Amino acid sequence: MKTIPLALAALSLSAAAAAQSPQSVSGQGASALADEALHTDTLAWDFVEGLTTEVGPRLAGTEAEARGRDWAAEWLNRHGFANVRIEPFTLPVWVRGEERAHVVAPFPQPLVISALGDSGATPAEGITAEVVPFMSYAELEAAPAGSLAGKIAYISHAMRPTQDGSGYGFAGPARWTGPSLAASKGAVATVIKSIGTDYHRNPHTGGTTFAEGVAPIPAGALSLPDAENLERMFQRARGRPVTLHLVLTPRMTGEAQSGNVVADITGRDPSLPPMLLACHIDSWDLGTGAMDDGAGCGIIAAAARQVAAAGQPLRTIRVLMAGAEEVGVFGGEAFARAHANAPVAVALESDFGADRIWRLETNFAKANPALHQRLAQAVARFGVLSGEGVATGGADIGIARNQNAGIIDLSQDGTRYFDLHHTPDDTLDKVDPAQLRQNVAVWTEVVGILANQPGMIRSKN
Amino acid sequence: MKTIPLALAALSLSAAAAAQSPQSVSGQGASALADEALHTDTLAWDFVEGLTTEVGPRLAGTEAEARGRDWAAEWLNRHGFANVRIEPFTLPVWVRGEERAHVVAPFPQPLVISALGDSGATPAEGITAEVVPFMSYAELEAAPAGSLAGKIAYISHAMRPTQDGSGYGFAGPARWTGPSLAASKGAVATVIKSIGTDYHRNPHTGGTTFAEGVAPIPAGALSLPDAENLERMFQRARGRPVTLHLVLTPRMTGEAQSGNVVADITGRDPSLPPMLLACHIDSWDLGTGAMDDGAGCGIIAAAARQVAAAGQPLRTIRVLMAGAEEVGVFGGEAFARAHANAPVAVALESDFGADRIWRLETNFAKANPALHQRLAQAVARFGVLSGEGVATGGADIGIARNQNAGIIDLSQDGTRYFDLHHTPDDTLDKVDPAQLRQNVAVWTEVVGILANQPGMIRSKN
Repeated sequence: MKTIPLALAALSLSAAAAAQSPQSVSGQGASALADEALHTDTLAWDFVEGLTTEVGPRLAGTEAEARGRDWAAEWLNRHGFANVRIEPFTLPVWVRGEERAHVVAPFPQPLVISALGDSGATPAEGITAEVVPFMSYAELEAAPAGSLAGKIAYISHAMRPTQDGSGYGFAGPARWTGPSLAASKGAVATVIKSIGTDYHRNPHTGGTTFAEGVAPIPAGALSLPDAENLERMFQRARGRPVTLHLVLTPRMTGEAQSGNVVADITGRDPSLPPMLLACHIDSWDLGTGAMDDGAGCGIIAAAARQVAAAGQPLRTIRVLMAGAEEVGVFGGEAFARAHANAPVAVALESDFGADRIWRLETNFAKANPALHQRLAQAVARFGVLSGEGVATGGADIGIARNQNAGIIDLSQDGTRYFDLHHTPDDTLDKVDPAQLRQNVAVWTEVVGILANQPGMIRSKN
Repeated sequence: MKTIPLALAALSLSAAAAAQSPQSVSGQGASALADEALHTDTLAWDFVEGLTTEVGPRLAGTEAEARGRDWAAEWLNRHGFANVRIEPFTLPVWVRGEERAHVVAPFPQPLVISALGDSGATPAEGITAEVVPFMSYAELEAAPAGSLAGKIAYISHAMRPTQDGSGYGFAGPARWTGPSLAASKGAVATVIKSIGTDYHRNPHTGGTTFAEGVAPIPAGALSLPDAENLERMFQRARGRPVTLHLVLTPRMTGEAQSGNVVADITGRDPSLPPMLLACHIDSWDLGTGAMDDGAGCGIIAAAARQVAAAGQPLRTIRVLMAGAEEVGVFGGEAFARAHANAPVAVALESDFGADRIWRLETNFAKANPALHQRLAQAVARFGVLSGEGVATGGADIGIARNQNAGIIDLSQDGTRYFDLHHTPDDTLDKVDPAQLRQNVAVWTEVVGILANQPGMIRSKN
């Protein structure tokens, strides 16, 4: 017989072995449905279209989020999920108020601003103060103590779009802790260049955190066109002070209820720990939460349904649509607390939009190389590469991190994600139906394999 | 000698003739500067950057428009224009108030809306009414008299982006006369799908006109994402009424002053009627008026300066930066009235953004074919084609139409113009510096030829 290269021979053997293993039967059924989902899935679209049209924005702890939970529970019931329930928890609620900004001098004109989550408030009539520009977070760090007394700090950055979303980590501190840092140096307010990559007059909101002992100050994000206009004003002012009038009147409304929506595709073997598919049902208030994270909930729900359609899986597939993620992962933490003693085998989260998945990573490439390889080979036909990193999971699957359980990251293309993230522009029209279906196909493939995997995935869970 | 094809021979002869004619000396000087401007012009950018940064929005009849006039006059003086003056006129002024909309039932959520110019107002507390959808202006026309009593009319359209901007004429009636038509059938308010082509949460404002005897009703534009969300609600409501709460409180503030900014590059022969280069200095209030029409003013001013740099032109080049164009061409009409007895030789306007010029048309291809051909040949190297149509000119050069003077249209690429037109997104970052320079180059070429043209252009003017 002819000599064949070793790698090809190994591949043939492994394919033959897979064809004979018991789990591959159901896995192959889901595989066929994954192929079909790539071209025909309508479930994920139906979910995100329905949620954004019939509910819209779903700010954590508001009645709108409650309507979102009820809507999702009804959808899951209607689509044959079992044990659909809402697991309540409470959180302190922050709501937006008035928000306006205008340059008083030397170049009077309005600027478009939105308050950051947990921002402090100005008086109703606003404040007027000189603006001190910092072209980076590092510049602000270098400002002497007390040097911002009575001033408004402006923080810029040079965020760039990237496929892996890494620009967010680079620019994010301006929002996450910039206002607190400025406050600690005496600033009466902070305005930042939106942590985003688009040039539309739609600021990017998102949470900010004030350090222990630092009283919250008003903190808002300018859209990129407004931020860069302000930067040009500093250039053209040639040393004259630039003065801003700012009205931001958000407020804390007290403790209120939120909840996690949980539902199952019940497996054949209740003794096996379930796998967990997560997304979050809340959204920021400015958009309708289509990419963040209506689409993610649509993807996981559609994939679970597709796998169920191939026959009852061996292992229970549990869907977690977490509440109150945006404002501090309250839902994910409540779930981890409530289910601390119920082992999870493996967890995945979809919370990075709806553009195509380009990379698969797991946290068990060493502990379970055969399964890792099987998953990597199975998704390759959808254009998904196997990454070199170790999966750490999304915000809402802390339970899997706590338990040292299996985690898989299916990385979505983030190139345009930060054009939309936390803005009014996060609306249904931004979801590309073809890329959404590729997500469903990849998830169906991966969930189909894992839900029919009898043995250990990462830990003895 | 070798036989050469006839067309090429004709071209050689014509080029030789041009090289010997007196006007071609200066024309060629401007031609060289046009070539250079394509790569190096900074004047047009300096104008539009300065105007949008130091002044910002310039709503007709407001103090902001007055600051825009003063800023432009100062710029023109600083750049060596002669006879820089402001020619005042008055107009009734409309200003924006509060604007909010939300769906009350069956799917409560906010929608992003902006009032149309000359919209009527709701009471401060707003109105709540059922919405009747019309998927086109024609559908609204077909609605029976009185059928909209107590209702809010919603008007949709299917505008598409086009290079020549023709989609505007197709979709525009929904804004221009839709509210008046709906009011005549009893509607208490009208909301339209923005007359635009982008999917951002930035509505397109613009003027609406109520017919004689029709009392103005509140009229606003939803952004396209909001409009299409509302359309999906009609689908999903399955016959249940869709109810909207609407707050729009614009008001007329009375008669106020506006003005035209006029300046000259003085020609060598004062007996020749001047050529007129027009743009408008006012803008809608939502954006900073970069594409509409700060860039246009930058283009014409830069081209006039480039031509002057090649040597004093034969004919005076007059620059008209008209006031109050957006709200009803008040400036252009005031100019036409004030200068009715002062002949204009030829007029051109730049008021369609800052993307590349792709077509030249004149209204003297028959009356003066040699000049038309010379212009067409001269701009060909910038990628500009000669069109088959007859130029009719921009809104502000009615004076040329009144006088049967020469008119040239230098058509800009409108493919993305209606993504930005009359929106908050009309900001400096949308101006592409390379395409802006192509505009300056083409204008410099055309103005250089015309300003050094001794004979008749179209009429005996």
